[in-house]
Amino acid sequence: MNRRDFNSILAGSLVATVFPRTRLSSPIQSDLRVNGDRINAHLAALSEFGKNPQGGVSRVAYSEADRAARAKVMDWMRDAKLEPTIDYAGNIIGRRAGQNNSLKPLMFGSHIDSVPSGGNYDGDVGSMSAIEVAQTLAEHGVVTRHPIEVAIWQNEEGGLFGSRAISGQLTTAELKTVSSSGKTVEQGIGFIGGDVRKLDQVKRRKGDIAGYIELHIEQGGKLAASKIDIGVVEGIVGIKRWDVTVTGFANHAGTTPMNERHDALLAASRFVEMVNRVVRSFPGGQVGTVGRIEAFPGAPNVIPGRVVCTLEVRDLSDAKIDTIFARIAMEAKSIGSQNGTQFAFAPAHVSEAAPSTPRMRAIISEAAKSLGLSTRVMPSGAGHDAQAMATLAPMGMIFVPSIGGISHAPKEFSRPADITNGANVLLKTLIAADQALP
Amino acid sequence: MNRRDFNSILAGSLVATVFPRTRLSSPIQSDLRVNGDRINAHLAALSEFGKNPQGGVSRVAYSEADRAARAKVMDWMRDAKLEPTIDYAGNIIGRRAGQNNSLKPLMFGSHIDSVPSGGNYDGDVGSMSAIEVAQTLAEHGVVTRHPIEVAIWQNEEGGLFGSRAISGQLTTAELKTVSSSGKTVEQGIGFIGGDVRKLDQVKRRKGDIAGYIELHIEQGGKLAASKIDIGVVEGIVGIKRWDVTVTGFANHAGTTPMNERHDALLAASRFVEMVNRVVRSFPGGQVGTVGRIEAFPGAPNVIPGRVVCTLEVRDLSDAKIDTIFARIAMEAKSIGSQNGTQFAFAPAHVSEAAPSTPRMRAIISEAAKSLGLSTRVMPSGAGHDAQAMATLAPMGMIFVPSIGGISHAPKEFSRPADITNGANVLLKTLIAADQALP
Repeated sequence: MNRRDFNSILAGSLVATVFPRTRLSSPIQSDLRVNGDRINAHLAALSEFGKNPQGGVSRVAYSEADRAARAKVMDWMRDAKLEPTIDYAGNIIGRRAGQNNSLKPLMFGSHIDSVPSGGNYDGDVGSMSAIEVAQTLAEHGVVTRHPIEVAIWQNEEGGLFGSRAISGQLTTAELKTVSSSGKTVEQGIGFIGGDVRKLDQVKRRKGDIAGYIELHIEQGGKLAASKIDIGVVEGIVGIKRWDVTVTGFANHAGTTPMNERHDALLAASRFVEMVNRVVRSFPGGQVGTVGRIEAFPGAPNVIPGRVVCTLEVRDLSDAKIDTIFARIAMEAKSIGSQNGTQFAFAPAHVSEAAPSTPRMRAIISEAAKSLGLSTRVMPSGAGHDAQAMATLAPMGMIFVPSIGGISHAPKEFSRPADITNGANVLLKTLIAADQALP
Repeated sequence: MNRRDFNSILAGSLVATVFPRTRLSSPIQSDLRVNGDRINAHLAALSEFGKNPQGGVSRVAYSEADRAARAKVMDWMRDAKLEPTIDYAGNIIGRRAGQNNSLKPLMFGSHIDSVPSGGNYDGDVGSMSAIEVAQTLAEHGVVTRHPIEVAIWQNEEGGLFGSRAISGQLTTAELKTVSSSGKTVEQGIGFIGGDVRKLDQVKRRKGDIAGYIELHIEQGGKLAASKIDIGVVEGIVGIKRWDVTVTGFANHAGTTPMNERHDALLAASRFVEMVNRVVRSFPGGQVGTVGRIEAFPGAPNVIPGRVVCTLEVRDLSDAKIDTIFARIAMEAKSIGSQNGTQFAFAPAHVSEAAPSTPRMRAIISEAAKSLGLSTRVMPSGAGHDAQAMATLAPMGMIFVPSIGGISHAPKEFSRPADITNGANVLLKTLIAADQALP
């Protein structure tokens, strides 16, 4: 690249547009692009690890398929001029030095573990794209100001174990959790090359990382349905879950007249419908789900005396979740009074909302615009490693469309062109953030 | 008893009123009454077999408690001048000769096995009362025209095994059924003194029995709530059961907008409420119940893609059950179309309605009236041995009130006075039927 090229970049650069005070420390071509064919070839190669005959993969964390795929990922990192290491938590971190190695690293990545009978895009798209971005930079001789670290987080699907270890949220008790592989998290971390005795040493503090960027499939149908290229994630929703118990009175299904029943399942059914109605009655993108239900004693000829079910509400605002739950609890009481049943709610899980950093959102939007791609600002309804990383550093997240919104299933699919677009946005975002962030 | 007493009975006899052409073959006092204290003392003694610390009994068929109680019952039969034998099906039959032993026997009785964690009245009241009626007759020197047989049917709760053996409905395959005791029915029958190799010999044909009468607790709350003394059972309801499958589409509970869900549990919940509404919309005493439900995959964070539940409808009219089901199936289709889910119904169980014999109902009503007791004609929502016996002989059934309608539970309760009333109706009914039936 010559001086003239550099000047023309400066003139048209999105970085210069968004943050005119920043100064490019290295010459970067404005027409720099990832190799889309290589990303999609890597995705196809990755899909062989844990492949299911009926489609998709079962590459659950700590399985043989997971371990074998991780070795392959480290090979691809080396091809991309990254130096991969496995940290004590089992994460793969591929590092490349920057121009100024006293700066904190700029991290980007995702995960390659899947749910049981999962698909070939969740996590994989972001992981392969991150490596591709590094390879593109290397192939074009671009050296960033910050050191870069491509992270392939371990056991995202089980509960963000790798990223929560780095952000200091993982507890000792959680290490005993049995994962989908059958191994405990502790056994699993050892299996993939980590060392739980030294977990404390992987923790990073706020300020230890310059920024974190993650590309991911949307796992919803909004982008595809509205033909939008790129989702600019405004944040990862908070999640609250409750175990709900409905108590009525079990009785003989043949001899108890309809109007004398305290049928816990009838009340629970009205509850499920009410949850749907109440959640939809608020403006916004919040969701509410009853995913598990069981009636007791559970015989065809006995009126259910007790029902247990789950309730989950997600929104970008933790306060709004509380407001929705308060309405649900109030209406549940009224439903119970209709047939002499009682509702009880036991909090079961809380995951606080993690907003992305406004500066990162602006960089992602500008990056997409510079590529001629349409964008939509949207929440992430699913959890991601980015939410753990948001506690440590400025966080940005990029979504690409999922066809039909199908996820955690073999039919999960994102178009190769959309993936390439997303990887190019990641590339441009990284370059801009490298300039913009301290 | 002297001749004058006999004449006075003839003049005032309910038998003479209802069937004026019949002739009393032995002198019977119109003021003949059972010993209510003895029935209730026997019930208390019986409640010791399989007693649970928290109340009620677990005297499931083929348990040690069942076998021990049966031995005690045979002692009480001997006290009542009955000759107890155990038939090849394991039923206890206590026989006493009649005046004319070429007549077919008049049978009456019930069962003493319980459900797990059951109560002290279901089956026991009819069994102890039947023995008491025999003892009352014996103590007063009354000899019936027909031979009488008090039957204590084995394993009623498991599925009318004893009475269905006698009526020829029990199949060889059913002998492999594992009962609540843990034993197969075949093992259980051997355990209580029967012999499955000779089951064919216990079968009786239509016409082999002069009539069958059973006293039972209502197991519902209608009589107690309306302060009626005696239920005259118009028949035992037919039962149809279906396994219902609701198919939607499982998806991520965080990323799938509310209006894009094919939530099988939401549809199933609307189904449960609709079943309740449709069943109540018909005039009559029919009941419909969804007693078991499960959502798949059954995780708090996954929209259910499939729900399986049961549907049971009971009514005295098999045709009405079909009409109600047709309406339910039609409305289910409409519910499914609301959110893109499908309903499928697989027939799981059919038990045809067993109407009682009108002549028997008249005798029972007259018997109650002669004792100054109020009556209500009503269906039996529960299954009983009487439904198997109805295929062989004229069948009549008498109900006494259950407080609060509680049954199959430790809190099952019938007042001693109501039990005594029921036993007196059984006594009068037996005497009248002995005269009325060929």
